[in-house]
Order: sequence, then C-alpha cells, then structure tokens
Amino acid sequence: MSNTSPRHLALRDLEHHGAFIERHIGPNDAEIAHMLEAIGQPSLEAMTDAIVPRSIKSTEPLAMAGAINEEEALAKIRAIAQRNQVFKSYIGQGYYGTHTPNVILRNVLENPGWYTAYTPYQAEISQGRMEALINFQTMVRDLTAMEIANASLLDEGTAAAEAMTLALRSSKSKSMRFFVSSGCHPQTIECLKTRAEPLGIELIIGDEREAGSADVFGVLLQYPNTFGEARDYAALAEAIHAKQGLVAVATDLLALTLLKAPGEWGADIVVGNSQRFGVPFGFGGPHAAFMACRDSYKRSMPGRLIGVSIDAEGKPAYRLTLQTREQHIRREKATSNICTAQVLLAVMASFYAVYHGRDGLIRIARRVHRMASILADALRAKGIDVGTDFFDTLHVCGIDAEAIHAKARAAKINLRHIDGSSLGISLDETTTRENLTALAWLFDIDLDVDAADAEAGDALPTALLRESDFLSHPVFNTHHSEHEMLRYLRALMDKDLALDRSMIPLGSCTMKLNATAEMIPVTWPEFSLIHPLAPADQTTGYVQLINELEAMLVECTGYDAVSLQPNSGAQGEYAGLLAIRAYHRANGQAERDICLIPESAHGTNPASAQMCGMTVVVTKCDANGNVDVEDIQAKAEKYSDRLAALMITYPSTHGVFEEEIVKICEIVHQHGGQVYTDGANMNALVGVAKPGKWGSDVSHLNLHKTFCIPHGGGGPGVGPCAVKAHLAPYLPKTLGGEGTVGMVSAASFGSASILPISWMYITLMGAAGLRRATQIALLNANYVSKRLAQHYDTLYTGRNGLVAHECILDLRPLKDSTGISAEDVAKRLIDFGFHAPTLSFPVAGTLMVEPTESESLHELDRFIDAMIQIRDEIRAVEEGKLDREDNPLKNAPHTATMVMAEQWKHGYSRELAAFPLPSLKLQKYWSPVARVDNVYGDKNVFCSCIPVDAFKEEVAG
Amino acid sequence: MSNTSPRHLALRDLEHHGAFIERHIGPNDAEIAHMLEAIGQPSLEAMTDAIVPRSIKSTEPLAMAGAINEEEALAKIRAIAQRNQVFKSYIGQGYYGTHTPNVILRNVLENPGWYTAYTPYQAEISQGRMEALINFQTMVRDLTAMEIANASLLDEGTAAAEAMTLALRSSKSKSMRFFVSSGCHPQTIECLKTRAEPLGIELIIGDEREAGSADVFGVLLQYPNTFGEARDYAALAEAIHAKQGLVAVATDLLALTLLKAPGEWGADIVVGNSQRFGVPFGFGGPHAAFMACRDSYKRSMPGRLIGVSIDAEGKPAYRLTLQTREQHIRREKATSNICTAQVLLAVMASFYAVYHGRDGLIRIARRVHRMASILADALRAKGIDVGTDFFDTLHVCGIDAEAIHAKARAAKINLRHIDGSSLGISLDETTTRENLTALAWLFDIDLDVDAADAEAGDALPTALLRESDFLSHPVFNTHHSEHEMLRYLRALMDKDLALDRSMIPLGSCTMKLNATAEMIPVTWPEFSLIHPLAPADQTTGYVQLINELEAMLVECTGYDAVSLQPNSGAQGEYAGLLAIRAYHRANGQAERDICLIPESAHGTNPASAQMCGMTVVVTKCDANGNVDVEDIQAKAEKYSDRLAALMITYPSTHGVFEEEIVKICEIVHQHGGQVYTDGANMNALVGVAKPGKWGSDVSHLNLHKTFCIPHGGGGPGVGPCAVKAHLAPYLPKTLGGEGTVGMVSAASFGSASILPISWMYITLMGAAGLRRATQIALLNANYVSKRLAQHYDTLYTGRNGLVAHECILDLRPLKDSTGISAEDVAKRLIDFGFHAPTLSFPVAGTLMVEPTESESLHELDRFIDAMIQIRDEIRAVEEGKLDREDNPLKNAPHTATMVMAEQWKHGYSRELAAFPLPSLKLQKYWSPVARVDNVYGDKNVFCSCIPVDAFKEEVAG
Repeated sequence: MSNTSPRHLALRDLEHHGAFIERHIGPNDAEIAHMLEAIGQPSLEAMTDAIVPRSIKSTEPLAMAGAINEEEALAKIRAIAQRNQVFKSYIGQGYYGTHTPNVILRNVLENPGWYTAYTPYQAEISQGRMEALINFQTMVRDLTAMEIANASLLDEGTAAAEAMTLALRSSKSKSMRFFVSSGCHPQTIECLKTRAEPLGIELIIGDEREAGSADVFGVLLQYPNTFGEARDYAALAEAIHAKQGLVAVATDLLALTLLKAPGEWGADIVVGNSQRFGVPFGFGGPHAAFMACRDSYKRSMPGRLIGVSIDAEGKPAYRLTLQTREQHIRREKATSNICTAQVLLAVMASFYAVYHGRDGLIRIARRVHRMASILADALRAKGIDVGTDFFDTLHVCGIDAEAIHAKARAAKINLRHIDGSSLGISLDETTTRENLTALAWLFDIDLDVDAADAEAGDALPTALLRESDFLSHPVFNTHHSEHEMLRYLRALMDKDLALDRSMIPLGSCTMKLNATAEMIPVTWPEFSLIHPLAPADQTTGYVQLINELEAMLVECTGYDAVSLQPNSGAQGEYAGLLAIRAYHRANGQAERDICLIPESAHGTNPASAQMCGMTVVVTKCDANGNVDVEDIQAKAEKYSDRLAALMITYPSTHGVFEEEIVKICEIVHQHGGQVYTDGANMNALVGVAKPGKWGSDVSHLNLHKTFCIPHGGGGPGVGPCAVKAHLAPYLPKTLGGEGTVGMVSAASFGSASILPISWMYITLMGAAGLRRATQIALLNANYVSKRLAQHYDTLYTGRNGLVAHECILDLRPLKDSTGISAEDVAKRLIDFGFHAPTLSFPVAGTLMVEPTESESLHELDRFIDAMIQIRDEIRAVEEGKLDREDNPLKNAPHTATMVMAEQWKHGYSRELAAFPLPSLKLQKYWSPVARVDNVYGDKNVFCSCIPVDAFKEEVAG
Repeated sequence: MSNTSPRHLALRDLEHHGAFIERHIGPNDAEIAHMLEAIGQPSLEAMTDAIVPRSIKSTEPLAMAGAINEEEALAKIRAIAQRNQVFKSYIGQGYYGTHTPNVILRNVLENPGWYTAYTPYQAEISQGRMEALINFQTMVRDLTAMEIANASLLDEGTAAAEAMTLALRSSKSKSMRFFVSSGCHPQTIECLKTRAEPLGIELIIGDEREAGSADVFGVLLQYPNTFGEARDYAALAEAIHAKQGLVAVATDLLALTLLKAPGEWGADIVVGNSQRFGVPFGFGGPHAAFMACRDSYKRSMPGRLIGVSIDAEGKPAYRLTLQTREQHIRREKATSNICTAQVLLAVMASFYAVYHGRDGLIRIARRVHRMASILADALRAKGIDVGTDFFDTLHVCGIDAEAIHAKARAAKINLRHIDGSSLGISLDETTTRENLTALAWLFDIDLDVDAADAEAGDALPTALLRESDFLSHPVFNTHHSEHEMLRYLRALMDKDLALDRSMIPLGSCTMKLNATAEMIPVTWPEFSLIHPLAPADQTTGYVQLINELEAMLVECTGYDAVSLQPNSGAQGEYAGLLAIRAYHRANGQAERDICLIPESAHGTNPASAQMCGMTVVVTKCDANGNVDVEDIQAKAEKYSDRLAALMITYPSTHGVFEEEIVKICEIVHQHGGQVYTDGANMNALVGVAKPGKWGSDVSHLNLHKTFCIPHGGGGPGVGPCAVKAHLAPYLPKTLGGEGTVGMVSAASFGSASILPISWMYITLMGAAGLRRATQIALLNANYVSKRLAQHYDTLYTGRNGLVAHECILDLRPLKDSTGISAEDVAKRLIDFGFHAPTLSFPVAGTLMVEPTESESLHELDRFIDAMIQIRDEIRAVEEGKLDREDNPLKNAPHTATMVMAEQWKHGYSRELAAFPLPSLKLQKYWSPVARVDNVYGDKNVFCSCIPVDAFKEEVAG
C-alpha cells in the first residue's frame, strides 16, 4: 500500500476482515514469492497442483463463511457463550466446583509458555513441566497411599476402563468377568461397558457387597460412592484378593485428605479425576484423570510416567521413563492405545496442591464437609433422609424431587437428578454459607448456619478417618505466598522451550500457532463454569458451538457426521473402529475382524484395532515409502471374508501424497472393508482435498494439530471422529442418550471447553484462509527440504520431487560414516534454541520436520542455518577435524555450567559449544540439564519428587 | 492444623476469609517467629511499639471491613463494575476506541513479567523494556517528524503544560504570554490554566489565526483540532518564529499516518496521547502521552529519555540517558517535577505499532477516514454541516443536538456534547459499517454504506497529505505474524528482571506483591471501555469505586478528603501544594510562599514547590539522619510571615520514625504554615499511625507503592492527594466541575482504570491485614538489617536500634578501603539474579533496602546470602586476594559471553564470576549486557532504534 494518496480506496478493501489470516500464517507475500522461487514453483496454485494428486483435489472452495477478524469473531462467540446460563451447580457425580487460584489461571492456563509446549519427549527442554508432573504423581501417590502414580489419563471413565484392563493383565485369575459396583458414577459404567465388550470381558454390575462371592478377575469400587457414602471396603478387598482378583477403586482426591486412603485398605489400582483441584467444569472436560497402583504393575500401567534419572553431568534430571511408553504402544500387542495425556490440566492440579499444601487442602476439605454436615443436620431435622457416612454429597431421599428441582431451577440452582423421590447435592470449595441457606430454603428450612454448625456432628465414619500424612515434600510447603508461587511458576516455565520462544518443527504433530484470540473464550465463565450434566436449556450456547463446529469439520473433511466426544486422537481412532465394527455387525457380518495396517502407521493404529477386538494384519511399504498397493490388494483378497478395515494415514507418515489412494479405497470396498483414514496429517489437506470425498469412510481428526488447540505440554487433545452417512448411526452415544455404540469418553462432548479454540480458528480463517494455510504448510515444508537438500537427503518425495507438509531428513548415512546419530542432532539443536523435529519416526535414524504454515521465513531460515551448521560439524567429524566421541554433537546439549567449566577438556572451543552461530549471542536458550541418561532412568525407576538432598548434593558437588 | 481428627472445627474458623493475607505476606507464622527472634523482639506488637513513637501510634484499629478472600472480593467488584454501562462511544476529544491486539493484551498487560518491572534505572536488567521504549520514541519521532522524542509523559493535558514551560525555557522571547488555540481539547486548556498561573505565565486563549500578531513566547495548536479540522499552520508557525516564539502542537498519532507531520511545517514541540494505539479508554487513563521536539531542546525536555550507549564489551546497550534525568530533577531549580512516566502504556502503544507496522497503521487510518467521509457525505446530503478538512471527527452543526443525543442514548451510543445546536462524532478503529448505519439512522438517514462509499470523496486537504515515510526501521516490519510478535514480546521480557523472578528491594519504592486477583478487574470491559466523558448515569460503578476507595484512603491516613485525580506521586505533591497555596490566598495570605524542605527529601519535593511558585528553603538533617528540629524552628521563625509549608517525608527517607514529628507539626502551625507529609513511605504506617491525626495537613499517597498498583516498568502511577477538612475545598476540580484549584491531570479521575487494583488490595486485606502488612514490612527490613549487621553498617536507626520499613547500608567505608563502590555492589547483585536496592539515595555511597512485607524468609535469606558473599568478595579485595580493579565486583555484571570467553584473563575464576553461590547453578539469570557505559551514552546521545547493522557488527566482532 502506498501512502502517497489516501483517496479512492474503497471501504470494503480497507476493512480487512482477513487480517487474522496474515497473523496466523508466517510468511508475508514477498516472502512467499521468494520461497516459491526457491522451490522452483511459479505460484502457490501451481505448487499445489504439483503436490496433490488430481484424483483427490477439491474443485470447489470450502462452503464456509469468509474470514472475519479477531474482534468480529470474539463478538460472535461471545454471543454464543451468552446463550449458556451459569447456574450454581450441586450436581456432583464426579465434577465439583473449584476455585482456580488466580495466579495459576493467569500464569499457567492463560500463558503460552505453558500451554504451547509439546509432550516432553525431549527431556532436556521439558524439565519444568516434568517437575510439575512429578509433583502431580507425588500428589496422587501420597493421597491414594499407593506406590506409584502416572502423569494423568484422559478422564475418570476411561481411567476406570484402563484399570479394568490393567487388572486383567495383572491378575492371576482366569476369569474374564469384572465386577462393577453400582455405586460407581454412571458415566464410568458406560465407559466400562464400551471397553469391555470387544475385549470379551463380561461385566457384572451390582451391589459391591455381593462382589466377594463372584468369580471375577477384579472389581471396581467408588470411594466415596456416587451417592456420597464412604464405605469400608477392607473386608471386601481381602475377599477379592483371596480369589486372585484385583481391587480397583475410583476415588476423590479432596475426600482423601480426610479419609483413609485406598492404599491403606487393600486397593491395587486407584483412579479418579483431579478436576476439583483448580480445573473448572468446562462442560465435562478437559480435566486430568489419574491412575495409581502397586509398584509391581508399573510396567503394565497405561499412560505416561515421569521419572528421575541423571544427566551427563550426573545431576538429577527428569524424563519420560520406561522408554517413553506410549511411543511404544506395543503396536499389535497393545491393550491400551493411550497417547495424549492431560498435561496442562495435571500441571494445574499439581500447582493447586503446591499452592494450598497439605494444610490448605485439609482446610478446604473440612470446610466442604462441615457445610455438608450442617445441611444434612438441617434436612434430617425436617425428617428428610440424606444418607450417612458422606464427605460432600447428600443422597436426599423420600422427597418430591420434581418439586424441589423446580424450585431450584427458579433460583438458578442445579441439583443432581436421581429419580422421582430422591436427588443428590454435592457441596464443594465454592459453596458459601449463603449458598447453604439457599439450599436449605429449597426444603422450606430457614437455616441459621452458625447455630446449626454448633449442633451438627461430622459425618465421616471414625473407622475411615485418615491418619497418615501426605504432601510432606517441601515443594508442597514452600510456595504458599503468591510471590513464591509466581516465581516457582516462572522458574519452571523458563526451563522449557515452547512455541513462545521458537518453532517446534515436529513432524506429524503440527505445532502451529495457538492464537491468543482463540484462547480467550476458553476461560470465560459461560464456557468454563458449566457442569457437564447441566440441563439442556442452560447449555444452548454449547450446543450451538458444537453443532457449528461439527458442521465446519464435516465441510473440511467431506464426511457426513462428526462426533466431538473423543478427547484424544487415539480415542477418535477407537471410536472410528467401533463404528466400523458395529456397522459390520448390523449388516450381519460380525466375522469381519481383520484390520490391515501399513507398517508405516502410527503406533496407536494397531493398538486401537486391538482394543476393538480386531486382528491386525500389517501391509508393506515400497522403497519410495509408499504403501504397497499390491500387498494391500493381496491381503484384502486373502482376507476378503474377514476384512473389516484398512487404516491408512494420508498424506502418509512419510510426508507424501500417495497417488494411489483412490484405488486403495476401491480395493478395500471391493472386499467389503471400510477405509479408515488417520487424520493426523489433515493439516496438509484442509481446503485442498477431502478424505470423505475420495472414498474414505471414517477419520479421526486432531483438533490439537490441524485446528489449533495447543498441545499443553502433552494434552489436552481432541480427536473428533468423522464418518460417512452409513456409519453415522454408530458414533458414540451421549450419557443417557440412545445409540448402538457406547461412550468412549466420560463426558458426552469430551473436552468441550476447548472446542471454542477450533471454532475460533476456523471462523477467523474462513474458507480461503484455511486453504491458504494448507498451501503455506506445503510451501514451508518444501522450502526447508529444498534449502537443506545440499546438506541432508529428504528420504521420500512425491511426484515432481516435492514433499507434503513435512519432510523426513535421512541421517542414517551420516551415522554410518561418523557415528553421529539422529538423536545427537536432535540434542545439538537444543544448543541452537530449537526443539528437535520428530526423532526416528516413522523411520529409525531420521528426523521428520513439519514447520507448519505459522512459521515465518525468518524462523525457517534460522532453523535451516542451525541444521547447516550442524551438518558442517558432522562434516568436521567426517574429516577428522572433530573427534568421533568428543564433539559438540555427542556432548549436546551444553549447559552453562559445562561451557564455563574452569578446565575445558574438549577438542573444540567453548564458543563452538555455546554459540555455534553468532546470532545466539544476542539470544540464547540454556538447557537446564545436560543430556539425560535413559538407561540409568530405566534401570532406576523413581517417579516422585526428588528428595531435597539430591539437589543439595548436586550443588555441593 | 492437625489432620488426625476433622471433627469439631467450627465453620467460621474453616471459612478463612483472610486467606489472601497469607498470600500477600511473605513469611508464615513459623518464619515470623524465627525472624522476631533474630531481631530480638518478643512479638510483632512489641516490635511495633519499639519502632513507632507512642505520640503518633494509633490506638484504634482501622474502621474498615474485615478481610475477604479473592473470590469474594472479585464478586464484589464485579457487581460494582456491572453498574457501569458500556455504550458505544464517539465522543472523541482526545480519547478514541481502539483494539488492543490480543497477543499484547495477554502477554504484556496481563503478564507480570511486564507489569511488575521497575523503572529502568538499572540499565543492564532493563534492556527489554528499554528496547520497547526506544521503539516508542522512534515511533513518535517518525510520526511527528521531529528530531527527538521522550519515553512518555503522564497525559496529553500535562504534556501540553510541559510543552508550555519547555517553550518558556527555550524561547528567546522575553514575553511571559502563551497563546492557546481555542481549538485545543478543553481538558488540555484546563491543565494549562492550572500550570500557568503560579508560574506567572499569562494565557491568551483564542482563535489561533490571531496568534501571529500576539507578543508571546509560544503558542499551542491542536492538529487536527478538537472539532476535527486539520488546518494548515505553516504560515502561522513562521509568524511565531519571526517573533522568537515557539510553536507547540498537540496532535494525534493515527492522523499523522495520513497528514503532513508537524515537524514538516514548523512545529518546535509536539505532544499528544498514544492511547488509541491499543490502550483502552479506562475512564481517562492511564495512557501514555508523548513529547517530541527539536534536538537542541533535548537537555531541557521533561520526562525520561532512553538512549543507546555501549556496554563494557563495546556492544550496544540501552540506558536512561542524560544522567537518568528525573532522579536529578534539579531540585530547587526544577521547572518540571515529572518522575513517574507511563511505561507500561508506552510499551503497549509501541508494540501496537510494531504489530501493525506502517502499512497496517495507514490502513487503519484510511479506514477510519473513509468511514468519516461516508458519514459526512450522508449528513451533508441531508443539508447538515459537518465541517471540512477532517480526519476522523465530524463537527455536526445546525441540528437539534438534544434530540439527537436522546435518540443516541436509547441506542446505547454516546456522541460529544458541544452545545444545543452542534455535537461531535469521532470515529475510530473499532467503528464498523453497522455502527455507521446506526449513526446515520440517528439523523434519520437510511445509509447504504457501499453506495455512499462510492460517492464520498476524502476530506483531508490535499496540501496537508503526508508524503514522508515513517516506521521504516525493521522492528516495525518483521513482527507481523502472531508467532513473531509473541516471540519478540517473550524475548524482550526475558531480558529483564521483574518481581516474577526475584525480589526488588528498592528503598522508597515499595516493590510489594501485585496480586493477580487485584489485576484481573483492570481488563474487564466495564472498566476498560468507559470513555472519560461518558454521561454520569453510565459510570455509577466507577463513582462507587472511587468513593469507596477515597473513603478507604481517608481511613488509612486520618485525613478528611482525597482526590484521586493526580496520576503520579509528583502530581499528588503538586496538587497538595496548590491546595496549600490556595488556602493561604483564600485567607488573604498570598505572601506565604516559603516552602521548607529538609535536605533528605525526594527530589520531586522542591520541584513541585517551584512549580507552585514557592521559594524553597532547605533545612538540615542531624548526624543521625533526622531532620534538624532546631533548624526548622529557626527557619520557621525567620520566615514566619512568609511560611507556606513544610514538606517532610515520614518515616524519613533515612528509614527512621523520627520521634519529634508531632512537635515539628506544631512549630510549622505556630508560624502559620501547613505541613505536607510525603506519603512515599506510607507502607510503614498503614494501620499503625495516621499523618492526618498527628498534625499533618496534606499528603500525597503512592498507590503504586503502598497500595499495590504495579510499577509497570516505570509507570503508571497514581498519586492521590489527601487533605484535612480545611484544605478540602482546594483539591483539584473535575472537568466542567466547580473549584478554586484547576485540574492537575487531563482526566477528572486520573488513572481511573487502575484504581480497582488498590480497591481490591484494601478489600482483600481488611483492617487487620493492612496492619499486619505494615508490621511485616517493618519486621522484614529489620531482619535484613540485623542479619547483615556484621557485614554492613546500617547508617541510621531509630529508638532501640531498629529501622522502619527500609534500611540504608553504608558502603562508603568499603569504598574508601577498597575502591569498591555502591554501584559495583549494585551491579554485582545482578550476577546473583537480584535487582539492586536504591543506589545512593538519599545518601551517596549507600544502598537503601526495602524488602516489603511480600517477601518470604526464603527470599530474604537468598538476598542476604548474596550480600554476605559480596562482602566476602570485598574483603578479599581488602586483603589483597582480589585485585582492586580486576575483580568480580568491578567487572559485574558478567554476561554469558564474558564468562565463557576462550581466553579467561581475570584474576578470579569463571566459577566465581558466574556462580558465586552454588544455588545459582540451579537457577541463573544472565545479564543480557555487561555494565553499561554512562559517560559514553551522555556524550553520544542517540535515542531511537539502533540500525540493524550495529548488531550485525557486534555479532561479527
């Protein structure tokens, strides 16, 4: 735009509704032109034609509104939010009101330093969030009094299902029956039903007092149960153990500050939801569930486990332990497909415990219990039965429930619906004495709180009072002033590399911009304070948002229906395969149980197939990295009668648009199978091609990849399942809803409270913006590949020598000649301030780079410069100028203490170690630890807070 | 609290309404006991008695509500906020709607890394915000086309007043008359009137077309003027210059993207408000005003100026230039008392320019202008006069204004009230085409925007179209994608030390916790989106907040009335002295013009007195640092007929509660004077003693010290003026209000939008919490003083050898014996990750330490350990173990590049340089630059963005 004459520019041109597109996309027009020239393409359109097979390329633009700017989009979603009504909720049933400490709200949940971080696979640059997760594990371990706890699971319902399968794996019982207490939360029972059936597990749901006599491999109890009662299960646990069964317990962390811990009365596995530790309702999620168990099960435990190892200098350092676990989901042998966790929410819950400490949590719990006791006493005085032995929940019986609910509704109060003559009231941290008075008023009681307080006894059974200590580690006892807390949060954040400091070029993970405007609605009360079981007339805003987002995703994918229930990509896969399975059964073809999966697939694919009771048959890839169509053809024919599905990733995990995809779909359909397209790489497709239109039947999407939900340090994620019309009846049902296929998540709409992020993204970008994002994702990947071509081979390319949205750099030849591994390069990148690309996936010895469309030319060049410098260093090893062992790659990352050691013992300079490029002198990220020792960590599994002495020793040493 | 039995704890005890007190105050009960023991006091009360003179100590608790917790307080202020009504504002008059870019909102305004920083006196740890301020200066310089610009002023009105006095100082004219165009904003004219009279300046307010013939030392023009018209002032400027007068211009930065810059048509001084660059209305403030002028005036220019110097390694580094300016307000010779700036808001405005760049700003301006042109055309077509040559503001004349306003009100629209037949409409960045249609509808016009757009010409006069370039520096052209912007913000933030990483023990500056809960309401739309001239019925929430806060401050201070108008401490002083002056005049004692000021006073005291036309007489201090009562007595007697006031700081700037304060007040009163107590040290008094009760007549308070408004990197501040009843009639009037004393700030309630912070603080703490905070402030200071006693002398103590809330460590003996200066110690503290205490104030060669109550024992000990280690290093110099020149103190701070130099040439180890304490290996702040060279900076004043080549050279070198 010239500034010499402001006249005669039309308002329409000045309005710039597409402003956000330029904020989301890294390169500007001039840079795009430069990059196109670098890759030898005349235009974005020509480039797109050269990459995307004509057979699948969309000919129509997305039928979607045009872009609108940030203010317009925020106004629009504000109007949607305001259609939700925030009532005071006492519904409970696993979800309770909580106060997010403001210092945590602002400095964690609303801070990109935390929410844009990736899963801590690169241990060195993830020490901050791993410390928070170790705190989480310690908190869960302490409160449950178990031996070991993991770093979160997706929700309490699926955690219970994982407990069931862990019990199956670990029990010595031969039984395939599992007893589920009818005192468990309804949504938990639903998740168990879904999970049990394909695995051949028979559920017995009933009064747990009958479980002792049943022949089962395990039992699931709820403590306190869904109606509020804390029962003594010690004898039952003994009885179960006597028959080789295992005892799984779903519990409540806040209650455990007052109640004897499950680990103290015989539990083998303990699960639950940490939501009430500072994470809002959010209409059901995301929240961090947890699992704790006996130490002897730790190698079978699902999910991630953070452990303590040592670094190359012998100092303590955190890492994902047991070989980083879910990257090795044991493929065909898996019984869990869990990949994404709920890191951000687990981090928040752990900080809540750090902030309040043991005494603070006890005070909160006692206050809740006191309130419940006061209310109970008042109701009893009116002759109303409220149950006994409760912590926070009254089971109010013998009343006209509908009348009470009606009165409550008018007062903007939600109680739990149970039946016509009973209801539930769960109190929580947010309950005030005014609330208590209002609740009593519902029952025509004029409550004098202090007078009642003086009268009312406590209700917890004496035999179940907790006597053991917990949270005694200093971390839970030193950050109680806001300054201390704030500085602890900042100190941990500063240890880590997230998107707010540099690009994270992870292939397959699509670390694109998580724009602030997308994040802002998440913490609005109209979205965050809605209980998942709030009546429908209070959630019309959410329903509108969900319907609109589903429609947007339908349009982007070419499918006909979408379920937003799955709260991770793996859950989306599972839902998709369940739909295929149910479809075949409905067609009388229950025998279709073979799932073809190419050897290049994500590890979750075979795991999900396993969980659906399918038999995995692996198909080959050819030398170009493409799936071997002939092998698919052969195996489809061979298993024609049993063929259930083919699972395929598109574009492939090799970063290529395979030309034969339409043909492949035809082959599978000819043999009665369904085509499952893994949507992990949807970032290369939106606006350009639609799997639902080229013959695929079902896909899951990763909203946390393609649609801008931040990775949160390893979760939350959202994995919608999108299907063609014939599969739509087989999408997961909602809680209390109708459907052939059960729930795959505990909440009907999964991680509902983060759906505004994707809605905002799509709304801000509009049809043209989404398409352009895809094109720039392709451009950026090809630019990186091209500029690095002289230095590294890109392993696979498609037609015209172009890659898709990511490229695989082959480091194996260099390893052969120099001993420098892909891991060495990954660690060396830390010295340049970069998170490594995806390491050794899908091909060992390679790095897979996905720059995404959000990275500017400047940032791409910075990364390329680092990679070239690294190549020069490798060359120096090749040429003998650097030692094969003592070189900056093998010794990377270099900490500040290493580089400024009094005695410098290396065959290269300090300067080369720390500042291999001059620009690093202006801005330098210092790795907080040297390379972490994986072998030591696996041999010495230690998964809770480090004793303070360990650091003291380090410091002294 | 024991956890063995949860029974029988009363709800009242569990509710914990005082939870926030424990979050705000650093040490917990056990730590307090430990610290009391360390200072030899049996209890907090005993300690208080030992420190505070009985003659002033309050015997009653504050008459104020008890503490409530964060959720309760937020709910309460939410209810107040909701009493404000957010109308769409087209009032203009210097305040315009703007969109704060979301990435800036979240990562600057809502991020403690930015808002808790201190004024950049310590250059090395302030490089990030100084870069942002250099960007601000460059932006202002470019847009105004002047030679130099400062780093912000308080508001446009006082900036214009500063321009007037700068013109007086700089003009060669002998005239004492100043011409003010009646086209200036009304609030600007009010501020000029207030400022002119005590200085003997005669204002001529009229049509500026008559200014050319007047004998004046200068003229103030508004461009475009308050009614929207952009006039060509070139000939007028020439005429003024011909008579040795100077031309000051108040202007609008957005308009200057399209209009010929004042520097291009003869302006000598240019001022304005940068509010519309991303800073919300906030009911009038805070916003960053600016001043630009000819280079030759730079040594007379008020406010702060950031310059570029070099560091000890010869690399470019930012610093406050010209000897840090306002710390040397030239005391008795001052003509400006400006101290606090508006750093946080200037930073935001500069980032707005960085984010949008030149082209983006032009687009925004053109869009605004296009809308104004369309609306103007539509109104003209109806025969309505709307003025000519406008940018964004229509002066709508010849209509029934009241009828239009009534219609507008009903549609939730505010227009500017001018008179019965005319009104103003100012459009802005937030105006949409729907808004335009609604505005036309007010005039019964059915507007077809696109059709009108095609018809309407632009309105800017061709002769005034801008042709020159601006914002061509790369910083304004490389951070336009959100990722680039986000990373730039993070990179700058990371360079600086703020309260989110360590304590800032600045004496007199009270860097206490700025709690998140206090900050949250600031960005609520009900507070941030209210125009300062919104009708009263839309601002009842603000009025309630202001009334309540005033009442709280009255109770805390013992005065009878408070004005919240002054938007800095110095403005509060000025208002207080104006009140004294007006009081004497009202009593027929206009001859009272002597102001006694002890030599230990803050530099702003004499400067403020000067500005009120008073003559400053300095009184002595005795050897103990106390004011010399006999000297005061003598001078009060000597000037008995002329005595206007004594200005005194209490507790003294020497950190002592002087015993004689009551007597001093009596002396002054005996001689007809008034006592002005500087409230800078109010943190040592709240809840313990009240100046209004011991005989003081007036004080200003620093809400940004005692009452938790964050320092923002050097502003905003709020300096309420509190007075006894007899002075209440002389508090500053509001815009359009009645009063003897004029406005001291452009907005009636100064920096209204940050008042919620102090309201929240007082509400959260309650009477008992406030008093306890004061006691812990005393305890923390005494603990530091005591623990360091073996190592450093505390220069002054009061009764019982105790200090007040701060202590002065005397480093002069060490300087004498070793050559190590207080500055060396200050810089060495950076190597330990600490911001230095106040350096050489009030006594040269000392460090004044104020830990505040918000620092934990852990943090105090960390600081003490650092100071002890530093003392050991000084001892090593004393003992000849370290060289007098080449030692870690003289060479501090050590950057990473220094410490890991290939050749280590120092007589001490790298380890000592970088990690003088072992704990630093776990967490280390690296100074981004080595010690900044002040002499070089003053000799080579360079105050705009550094050419990129400078960094390139550095990197290559």
